[in-house]
Amino acid sequence: MSKGIIDCDVHPYPRNIEEIRSYMQMPWRDRYSGSGRGFFGNPVHGSRQDAKPPVGRPEGSDPEFLRKQHIVPYNVDHAILLPRAFCNLLPDPDFASAIAAAYNDWLADTWLGKYNPDGVFKGSITIAHQDPIAAAKEIERWAGHPHFVQVMTDSGARAPFGQRQYYPIYEACERLGLPLAIHPGTDGMGINVQPSPGYPTHYIEWHTCLSLGFQAHLVSFITEGVFERFPGFRVVLVEGGSAWVPTLIWRLDAEYKALRYEVPWVKKRPSEYLRDHVRVTSQPLERPDNDKFLLNNLEAMDAEHIMMFSSDYPHWDFDSPKQSFPKLPEALHNRIFCENAREFYKLNTPK
Amino acid sequence: MSKGIIDCDVHPYPRNIEEIRSYMQMPWRDRYSGSGRGFFGNPVHGSRQDAKPPVGRPEGSDPEFLRKQHIVPYNVDHAILLPRAFCNLLPDPDFASAIAAAYNDWLADTWLGKYNPDGVFKGSITIAHQDPIAAAKEIERWAGHPHFVQVMTDSGARAPFGQRQYYPIYEACERLGLPLAIHPGTDGMGINVQPSPGYPTHYIEWHTCLSLGFQAHLVSFITEGVFERFPGFRVVLVEGGSAWVPTLIWRLDAEYKALRYEVPWVKKRPSEYLRDHVRVTSQPLERPDNDKFLLNNLEAMDAEHIMMFSSDYPHWDFDSPKQSFPKLPEALHNRIFCENAREFYKLNTPK
Repeated sequence: MSKGIIDCDVHPYPRNIEEIRSYMQMPWRDRYSGSGRGFFGNPVHGSRQDAKPPVGRPEGSDPEFLRKQHIVPYNVDHAILLPRAFCNLLPDPDFASAIAAAYNDWLADTWLGKYNPDGVFKGSITIAHQDPIAAAKEIERWAGHPHFVQVMTDSGARAPFGQRQYYPIYEACERLGLPLAIHPGTDGMGINVQPSPGYPTHYIEWHTCLSLGFQAHLVSFITEGVFERFPGFRVVLVEGGSAWVPTLIWRLDAEYKALRYEVPWVKKRPSEYLRDHVRVTSQPLERPDNDKFLLNNLEAMDAEHIMMFSSDYPHWDFDSPKQSFPKLPEALHNRIFCENAREFYKLNTPK
Repeated sequence: MSKGIIDCDVHPYPRNIEEIRSYMQMPWRDRYSGSGRGFFGNPVHGSRQDAKPPVGRPEGSDPEFLRKQHIVPYNVDHAILLPRAFCNLLPDPDFASAIAAAYNDWLADTWLGKYNPDGVFKGSITIAHQDPIAAAKEIERWAGHPHFVQVMTDSGARAPFGQRQYYPIYEACERLGLPLAIHPGTDGMGINVQPSPGYPTHYIEWHTCLSLGFQAHLVSFITEGVFERFPGFRVVLVEGGSAWVPTLIWRLDAEYKALRYEVPWVKKRPSEYLRDHVRVTSQPLERPDNDKFLLNNLEAMDAEHIMMFSSDYPHWDFDSPKQSFPKLPEALHNRIFCENAREFYKLNTPK
């Protein structure tokens, strides 16, 4: 058994938009001009400056350089790749689905195909959740692919994810054994609602409040009974923060005790659904001045079973596998950095 | 010195809407039909059934019964009263301001007047934050009143509270030495934005997510630099939860370290503004199965200096002064149940 880690949030980028366009039919090919989101962008830079490949292409767009800078030095057994298609902010569901499909074709041919002889890279099926039925078909299109290990969507949405219009997505995920990863990035953009009482002003405020949308989605999944309706359905909350998990679930357990009359389809305490169906990735790890509080928090959330390490390579707030955490007990370290993800994604070591 | 407690969230109700209407001019008197909010109401009941006065009036509407049921048995030195005018959800700022003013006149004449010979009751000046300039005038109207100890508004809003359109309110609060209390209740109602990615479905979901709006407002206050612009301005977060405070501020401190370039008016770490300008009330206390995690959380948030006890009498999720907390160290207990509020509101004991 390898001693390598599993990194649950690595972002592969196309070298240029022609790579994506080449997988599109008309009229979408002519309409697509890249993944610009328009506002709430990092005012300095969105990626590590040292992650720019020597040949000058965008950060995260060169598999060989990514291997050299990230996979090899940190002994990464598997990198779970989450492309950033930004299709969830578009009002036109057909256009959004076309972008999602093009990203999937591109990822399958490149990072999960010719650049992946050893199977280090595992991928995410991008979907446009604006059209859940089309999204379910897109998921089915990749069923049985050896390297797609999950479905992914943005936390930015028009309705909390427990609501029934999304069921076709969850039915497909459950049937095909694929977890759903939720990743931030289009909150409050395009057609999506901002999960605050109104729009924030600055990137620091928008970025800090990304964790709020995740909290609302988790409460929605549980109170709407999604995990009772789809008992095999699993969710991973990526880059939405983790430190809020224990206190939110205390709150929800207390609410459930008093208000379960209103939601009789919720058969268990909310904390049990969390434990059985939900995982959270670690980056950006909320690390206090005093490591004691972090260790308390990890214990309170049962990180030993629900947290999976992620770096967010190549983005600006990258968490180094070597520096983001204080020294952890070895068993806890192995669960967070490797074993939880290995079990969740049913991965074998590739080496 | 009395050994009594200070309860920072008690709700006085009018006996009937005529009590409020009698303080209104036309045309508002004819238009006002009560404080109905229409949806996201508790599906069972909003108040303790045993809080109904024997004469049959609404819960919280009889000062003598409230004294007998709550003030005397729990040895409450002061109850901070927060009326529920629900004026913050109305599109018409004149109507909203008229309701706020009527509630203030009513409270001053009754609970803070003829029912308050011993000064046990301290009150909150209701404002309609839709019209910050009118709100500032309403605050000034009560300057120097011996029993109004704070201004209050709902967490439900159309924009996060750090934004500059609200400055007239904060200027008035600072000039008159009155903190601003933020209380939930109109989130996602009327003109207010729901602080989730879209509307929740059930009361349990809406009620659990009330804490999200508070988190967004706190981030906004700090990142917009409100506490630099108004150095004497203070905020108390009432009934928005407390357990999320430490982990949110870890996150914001980390964001500030990386992104302070974007907000140069923020001169200190976010956690310092929290300590110097913000207090949180305790109810509904997020209490985990294992009290160890609660005690860790209280330590992490520095509850000894920022938490103030509240019961939310007479509402359904009332926290008993005797049962809501586990046994605390005596010094911590005294700070939470009495001394923090005594300092924050500059109260003397009335007995």
